Amino acid sequence: MAGGGPELPHIVVVGGGFAGLSAVRALRRAPVRITVVDRRNHHLFQPLLYQVATAALNPADIAYPIRSVLRSQRNARTILARVLGLDLAGRKLRLADGELGFDGLLLATGATHSYFGNDGFEPWAPGLKTVEDALEIRRRVLSAFEAAERLPDDRDLAATLTFVVVGAGPTGVELAGALAEIGRLTVAKDFRRFDPKRVRVVLVEGGDRVLPVYSPALSASAAAQLQRLGVEVRTTAKVTNVDATGVWFGQEHLPARTVLWAAGVQASPLGTELGVQLDRAGRVPVAPDLSVLGLGGAGPPRVFVAGDLMSFVQDGKPLPGIAPVAIQSGRQAARNLLAALQGRPGKPFRYRDKGSLATIGRAAAVGQVGRLELRGYLAWWLWWMVHIAYLVGFRNRLVVMLGWAWQYFAFARGARLITGRAWEPQAAQAQGPAAPAGRS
Amino acid sequence: MAGGGPELPHIVVVGGGFAGLSAVRALRRAPVRITVVDRRNHHLFQPLLYQVATAALNPADIAYPIRSVLRSQRNARTILARVLGLDLAGRKLRLADGELGFDGLLLATGATHSYFGNDGFEPWAPGLKTVEDALEIRRRVLSAFEAAERLPDDRDLAATLTFVVVGAGPTGVELAGALAEIGRLTVAKDFRRFDPKRVRVVLVEGGDRVLPVYSPALSASAAAQLQRLGVEVRTTAKVTNVDATGVWFGQEHLPARTVLWAAGVQASPLGTELGVQLDRAGRVPVAPDLSVLGLGGAGPPRVFVAGDLMSFVQDGKPLPGIAPVAIQSGRQAARNLLAALQGRPGKPFRYRDKGSLATIGRAAAVGQVGRLELRGYLAWWLWWMVHIAYLVGFRNRLVVMLGWAWQYFAFARGARLITGRAWEPQAAQAQGPAAPAGRS
Repeated sequence: MAGGGPELPHIVVVGGGFAGLSAVRALRRAPVRITVVDRRNHHLFQPLLYQVATAALNPADIAYPIRSVLRSQRNARTILARVLGLDLAGRKLRLADGELGFDGLLLATGATHSYFGNDGFEPWAPGLKTVEDALEIRRRVLSAFEAAERLPDDRDLAATLTFVVVGAGPTGVELAGALAEIGRLTVAKDFRRFDPKRVRVVLVEGGDRVLPVYSPALSASAAAQLQRLGVEVRTTAKVTNVDATGVWFGQEHLPARTVLWAAGVQASPLGTELGVQLDRAGRVPVAPDLSVLGLGGAGPPRVFVAGDLMSFVQDGKPLPGIAPVAIQSGRQAARNLLAALQGRPGKPFRYRDKGSLATIGRAAAVGQVGRLELRGYLAWWLWWMVHIAYLVGFRNRLVVMLGWAWQYFAFARGARLITGRAWEPQAAQAQGPAAPAGRS
Repeated sequence: MAGGGPELPHIVVVGGGFAGLSAVRALRRAPVRITVVDRRNHHLFQPLLYQVATAALNPADIAYPIRSVLRSQRNARTILARVLGLDLAGRKLRLADGELGFDGLLLATGATHSYFGNDGFEPWAPGLKTVEDALEIRRRVLSAFEAAERLPDDRDLAATLTFVVVGAGPTGVELAGALAEIGRLTVAKDFRRFDPKRVRVVLVEGGDRVLPVYSPALSASAAAQLQRLGVEVRTTAKVTNVDATGVWFGQEHLPARTVLWAAGVQASPLGTELGVQLDRAGRVPVAPDLSVLGLGGAGPPRVFVAGDLMSFVQDGKPLPGIAPVAIQSGRQAARNLLAALQGRPGKPFRYRDKGSLATIGRAAAVGQVGRLELRGYLAWWLWWMVHIAYLVGFRNRLVVMLGWAWQYFAFARGARLITGRAWEPQAAQAQGPAAPAGRS
């Protein structure tokens, strides 16, 4: 299974996300053989996934083959495989179709949303993490409008045109803002039988404000900008149940055909294979050098963790699961893993916060850069620039810019495709969601 | 269910393809209410679907919401619904979720490929008709290269890198040419462990030449251009079986992991609901005015057929199932249906052949325009221009041109995404293909 010259130490990186890819790149001149293992063939630019879910971008605009990203890095190879488990003593990964030995291992398999133990919500409130998730959400959103057009009377119209987003972190805010724009701008021209003003978007947050990682002032600004877009913001609202009819807050019922879940954090299950104590979200506690804490074993550490999968406390707060943290930790973990394999001490990791931005909608966003607080058009413009700059793949940049320019000037959305069970607008309600082939 | 003023006659058009949409547009100033019924929300630009299957274009680049196409036509509405059957006496359609009455009906539900009674081939040799088909083919093609990269030894490499396309009509030729280019140009840079020269593309045709609808000279040119691209052309080859191991020609076995089916014609099953004698491909024989032959019933005809679903013989030959025929017949059928509803006689339909083009690959194509025979770069360029001009939706034109320009100058393919069961490169072989959610 190993590529390159057999004499060089073999580093296996599991996960081709921001953390994994930045780790591999940090080792491009290192005297090692690197194998990247991912169960998908593409790196996914997660920060823009909500735009696929809301029909603004194509999946391929924000996904790029991992092996193409690493094309020019001769000491790295990519394999498409599913990791089932770890054999730390034997220094190998168990794959769905074989084994893969390693001298050093970097786990960067990330995290997803969490239903806080209520996994029964999932069929009625899908989350947004994979391309398949995004296409399923797109299918549901577009199908809801199609269903509204078909309703014989207005009885069910309110529920059919009500979209509930649970969780007011960056993803929830982005989804809610985009849904409001679809209702107000895109759908208005295309449907004949219902009043677009009937479209209702409700953003539900358990905490007392939206975007809680930002300052209270920016949270207030974000809430105001959301309301300007037509989003109803509901804070300190605890969702007790989700079913085919909508969302329940204790005894209160909010009828809604379409519910999206953007709350909670649940780390990739691979962490459990390490046999160490994980945090409440299933993340792996790491030492300052990002090696796995409490793994023991003789000699220097060989297993490191980076990105959303790691639990790293800095200045008394756990680092958030965002791209910059993943990129910086991936880079440092890779360097420290190399040092360990060469018998050198590693350096402690410290996250440098260059600022953060959250978009809300057209010309609406908030941002925190050092002490500077940005809001509205300027923040949105900066957000756009930053994301374009990070997008992997030149062509993708072009297409995304084109798509955005189009969307911005024409108020149109270019990818309003219902794939999957397009002719069954009720299917998601009647029989639970279509399981994307990817998950079946 | 009916829209607009209830006094106007109600025309229902089933199918939002080229025939259906050109019919609706032909009636944009007619005093009628039109309802377009399709089980998909999008018009699909079939002639470019092979580019989605070969990772050159995104689905949304060639698919456009039907209701957006008809946005400005006030006398037409669009509903997303599946037609289960016809009640001609009662003048209504049976839908999966209701009924839809009509005064006049135009059926334009098209046709798909045919396994000539060997439907057992389908799991091993998918055809190309829907977006889901294209994504499944894309998944298989890209997964084959991933699998080749994973092979422990060269034993299975030949079969893993062999791609067989059955049927050398336009679609088969386009697929074979694009696959050869993927192997030679795109894949070469990205994979480490197998020699791209091992990629083998075999185009199988039962007749004695490729593109049989063209002149023998153009067929010969097409075959030569295919061979220049590295495609093996096998004519007068009868496929007797297809299974997980490859294709059988009687006793001869061609080992191949990936087989694609581009042969035969099978009309949409809706024709059987008419209770008239259909042709061998299940197409509906029509009168010169494109009304259904032998339907009987009192008064003027109310049911017309256009596009691939119709069987229309002109100058002793049945018209081919191509976009220009669909567009022209849809227009004429609509006019004649309107005339019938107004008690006027219709006009006989006559297809005007403006010429036809078939693309083979980069700068490779053949074309017939009147007496003029085109081949190579000129034909390819003309093909490109014509298809861009026909593409529905301005943004799509832009994106497609961008994508093509990119592909042409960078030899890259922009949509190399494996969605669905990406981490199971063997899945399609082991358990049959992933049933796209759309067909499950």
